[in-house]
Amino acid sequence: MPDSDRLEALQGQLRAFVAERDWDQFHTPKNLTMALVAEVGELIEHFQWLTPDQSTQLPEDTRAEVELEIADVFLFLLRLCDKLNIDPVLAAGKKLALNGERYPIAKARGKATKYTKLS
Amino acid sequence: MPDSDRLEALQGQLRAFVAERDWDQFHTPKNLTMALVAEVGELIEHFQWLTPDQSTQLPEDTRAEVELEIADVFLFLLRLCDKLNIDPVLAAGKKLALNGERYPIAKARGKATKYTKLS
Amino acid sequence: MPDSDRLEALQGQLRAFVAERDWDQFHTPKNLTMALVAEVGELIEHFQWLTPDQSTQLPEDTRAEVELEIADVFLFLLRLCDKLNIDPVLAAGKKLALNGERYPIAKARGKATKYTKLS
Amino acid sequence: MPDSDRLEALQGQLRAFVAERDWDQFHTPKNLTMALVAEVGELIEHFQWLTPDQSTQLPEDTRAEVELEIADVFLFLLRLCDKLNIDPVLAAGKKLALNGERYPIAKARGKATKYTKLS
Repeated sequence: MPDSDRLEALQGQLRAFVAERDWDQFHTPKNLTMALVAEVGELIEHFQWLTPDQSTQLPEDTRAEVELEIADVFLFLLRLCDKLNIDPVLAAGKKLALNGERYPIAKARGKATKYTKLS
Repeated sequence: MPDSDRLEALQGQLRAFVAERDWDQFHTPKNLTMALVAEVGELIEHFQWLTPDQSTQLPEDTRAEVELEIADVFLFLLRLCDKLNIDPVLAAGKKLALNGERYPIAKARGKATKYTKLS
Repeated sequence: MPDSDRLEALQGQLRAFVAERDWDQFHTPKNLTMALVAEVGELIEHFQWLTPDQSTQLPEDTRAEVELEIADVFLFLLRLCDKLNIDPVLAAGKKLALNGERYPIAKARGKATKYTKLS
Repeated sequence: MPDSDRLEALQGQLRAFVAERDWDQFHTPKNLTMALVAEVGELIEHFQWLTPDQSTQLPEDTRAEVELEIADVFLFLLRLCDKLNIDPVLAAGKKLALNGERYPIAKARGKATKYTKLS
């Protein structure tokens, strides 16, 4: 199945999953941002004591756990988009264009400092 | 562009954006999870003092800002997936199936308590 | 024991706890901010599906769990302060004075909007 | 002021600061955990692209900014404790004792793996 049909299909499955459990009542945007944080916290826990190098070479079982945490983050992000009627791919494309203006190649090249406003 | 290639195209654009700026050196999975948190923090700031009801009816300018924050979260999530060679749609589909087993409809219906393990 | 001697004593206990386990090698400020996020994620999980009102009246067992999560957040915050040689009470006093200038009573009174820069 | 009353005094100042601005209405525990996340996000942003080594040797101006972010995190944590009637120093002492049982020195020594449950 092509990519974006897969994304569309996933959003539909997620909507059905929530409806079947009558969980939509809990899914205000406010609550969903909190759930997103909780999942990001579980994701980051896998990386907190690793060196940057170690984080690029995860053992297979850690990688499998990380994949599921990323999935949780993505699912709550999609739910939030659904409730706010935001298309995440479209929004990301727009933001990437904005970032292109904000960080021109000539100035930003190789500098995390520029990126993060750290001096 | 046909609708079906939008996610794939976005990931390619993002890869090029990073390469042009020579930022790949900063994008270890460890660092990317931290960047993800920073963006989620900016997202949640828009919702922290709102009531749940207010969060479902954002003023248009707030909604536009929220859209850009969601975009940032999504972009770093995609970067992380790229570096770990994880397909976010596939991973989310797998996780949703797992959640279906973990929260059977009959037991989970209408209960956030079950969902969050709070008693 | 007076308050701040209690804080000083706690910081000493924490330092000893870490030294005995030879964990100081993992406690770079970078890593500690990640651990802090993971703990804040566990804390927020207790509140994500609650209404604001419910969050003010936690059942006793939830409150006990929340207390331990707050403790984890505080412990990592103290570790971070220790590694950066920052006095949290002094820093907070300074910041509170700055906030007083930034949010003058006459203008900020009763407005979360002012507080969060939301319009 | 004698050193011993600094934490208590800070909590009192914070309470007055909030009361003068009539902000207590926004400070449900739910909302405060969200504000805590937003501040932790601002804190982590300073560290996201740094190597662990760099994070131990912050330039003076970065360190000054980090100090103010830590202050914000601490202030919201104290607010949360105040609303939930939790003594952070007491709670942290309790948790540290629990951690001592959970991570016995002989087993935990030098292992972040034990600490984080990563294999």
